Amino acid sequence: MATLIPVILSGGSGTRLWPLSTTHKPKQFHALGGDLSLFQETLDRLPETFDTKNLLVVANAKQRFLIAQQCEHVLGHVPAIALEPQGRNTAPAAVVAALYAREIDPDALLLILPADHLIRDLAEFHTVLEHARKQAVQGHPATFGIVPTAPETGYGYIEKGAAVGEGGKAFGIKAFKEKPDQKTAETYFSSGNFYWNSGMFLFPAKRFLSDIGEHAPEMLKAATAAWQNAEREHDFIWLDEKSFTACPSDSIDYAVMERISDGVVVPSDIGWSDVGAWNALWEALDKSAGDNVHTGPIHAVDTERTIIHSDGHFVAAVGVKDVVIVATEHAVLVMDQSRAQEVKDVVAHLKDTDQLHLVDGPEADD
Amino acid sequence: MATLIPVILSGGSGTRLWPLSTTHKPKQFHALGGDLSLFQETLDRLPETFDTKNLLVVANAKQRFLIAQQCEHVLGHVPAIALEPQGRNTAPAAVVAALYAREIDPDALLLILPADHLIRDLAEFHTVLEHARKQAVQGHPATFGIVPTAPETGYGYIEKGAAVGEGGKAFGIKAFKEKPDQKTAETYFSSGNFYWNSGMFLFPAKRFLSDIGEHAPEMLKAATAAWQNAEREHDFIWLDEKSFTACPSDSIDYAVMERISDGVVVPSDIGWSDVGAWNALWEALDKSAGDNVHTGPIHAVDTERTIIHSDGHFVAAVGVKDVVIVATEHAVLVMDQSRAQEVKDVVAHLKDTDQLHLVDGPEADD
Repeated sequence: MATLIPVILSGGSGTRLWPLSTTHKPKQFHALGGDLSLFQETLDRLPETFDTKNLLVVANAKQRFLIAQQCEHVLGHVPAIALEPQGRNTAPAAVVAALYAREIDPDALLLILPADHLIRDLAEFHTVLEHARKQAVQGHPATFGIVPTAPETGYGYIEKGAAVGEGGKAFGIKAFKEKPDQKTAETYFSSGNFYWNSGMFLFPAKRFLSDIGEHAPEMLKAATAAWQNAEREHDFIWLDEKSFTACPSDSIDYAVMERISDGVVVPSDIGWSDVGAWNALWEALDKSAGDNVHTGPIHAVDTERTIIHSDGHFVAAVGVKDVVIVATEHAVLVMDQSRAQEVKDVVAHLKDTDQLHLVDGPEADD
Repeated sequence: MATLIPVILSGGSGTRLWPLSTTHKPKQFHALGGDLSLFQETLDRLPETFDTKNLLVVANAKQRFLIAQQCEHVLGHVPAIALEPQGRNTAPAAVVAALYAREIDPDALLLILPADHLIRDLAEFHTVLEHARKQAVQGHPATFGIVPTAPETGYGYIEKGAAVGEGGKAFGIKAFKEKPDQKTAETYFSSGNFYWNSGMFLFPAKRFLSDIGEHAPEMLKAATAAWQNAEREHDFIWLDEKSFTACPSDSIDYAVMERISDGVVVPSDIGWSDVGAWNALWEALDKSAGDNVHTGPIHAVDTERTIIHSDGHFVAAVGVKDVVIVATEHAVLVMDQSRAQEVKDVVAHLKDTDQLHLVDGPEADD
């Protein structure tokens, strides 16, 4: 059997989860509703068929020690960590991962996973991984389409085509769709033909490199140079700065999946959330009485549909409803849940007014 | 003219302004809407006829340095500060003040002021002080009745009797009334015959001592012993612990004003607030656009009728209305304005659950 290589892409900044998520410690490195961080949960939920000895993490160089420490805590070892001098979206990172995988096994299959998602149905996640693996070995690069639970406007969508194989386990891809407006989202949702684009993929490394070579030859060239000229320091692989910075920025969807005719989407009903903003976190987590989600030292009286997260500061809440309250070492956010998308405007304001220390947060120490 | 002796009673704990107000630094020592603390504003608004060289502060012994420092900042000197080993309500403190005043001038008039009130109309305050002074020298112990602006249930009331002198500047006192229920408060308010009981008084020291001797002889005896056996250390007058602790606890209203027939109430329309709770503070202060009152490093987007107070922590607020947000070094409070009275329940909960450090707050350093 082809070697299964798990690849975690950890480039997200998680701006909309400020003030918890900061430059020094973005969203994926925080525990949200559990003991492990989102990044650690991503490692922890890999099935045994994906040997974490072969794991590659692609990440921001500044977060390398945080990643090494969080990996060691969950895995008992530090995996290979490829360090990007600058973010170039997901496709160049996937090229690096494919080059890495090819060194282990020329027929390796890559499982590409974002580091900052919640997946609540572990068994079903393992089931859809196996569906995708079967498609990939038959020559169908696979993406995972989340079965939508609401007409969300915050996600891209994948329109399915004809069934591939039996049992509705995979479909051809008719089109990738940008984040829709409300009306379009409702059409998508009611049709039953659309999935949320999860940003997770499973495909043969070799096939991906040949697709990139065909559809994005400059990217292949630049990312290959960055890999070949990388400096290795223990488990850290410092991608060559000049080459990687010169690499075009693009997503796996745009650079490859949209341009090939034999990709498939695997419908995935796995309790997924991208935890993109505070209201999404509230929706994703188990609620206590009053539909509250409270984490940290909190005394709440008569609160309803609140999410309260404290890093350590004591928070008292009385008679408030539908609010988000976040207290960290450096800042406090109080917001109506319906305004959760506006956190990015607050962060932009802080940058514009030279209050960058509030965006960067304290130096991470774990 | 009889010497006018200002006396500041600083025994309040300001529990309902937690987490700003703490055991180590209660409400009166915080600046609320200005540069000076409520205590300092109380000193600062005294008219020149009240020489602050003769000032006496009666306070909790634990707060003596805070008081000394805040006095020096406003007055340029540290006044006499009588230290209570335990609170015994206002009447014993007034006995101590009367004994102190008698040493300066046997005919001295005492002006008794709580340390934790806001008064916005300085000119009118000085005017009513003069009305009260005239009554006091004619043998009428005077209290100040705040002209009510709403049927408040949170204050005691004074029912006025017949006019004393001309021009409606003073009235006899028909009755003192406890905090009423809503219906009763509305009756009081619409009648025009009731004032809020401010807890401010102006009377001759000698007369007060003779009234106390008649109506509360044990209190006179115990408080006199506490004064006579006090230990003096610089400006601090340590009232004798054994005597003062044995002193009955009572208010000036109950112990004297209710029991004499010639007391008067001076109607006072002076922009007064006792700032008893966060919503009272919101009502008392000038509001910015959106009817907000914001103090500290705050970024507010689309907030209405909010009071946000930060000691230094950055606070971002988005789309919230009618809330109180308070961020201090040790705790965060987020509360619907209508629930402002329940802060005392939060504080009680903290005491019950051995989280006294959150009630005490950090050690005061100014």
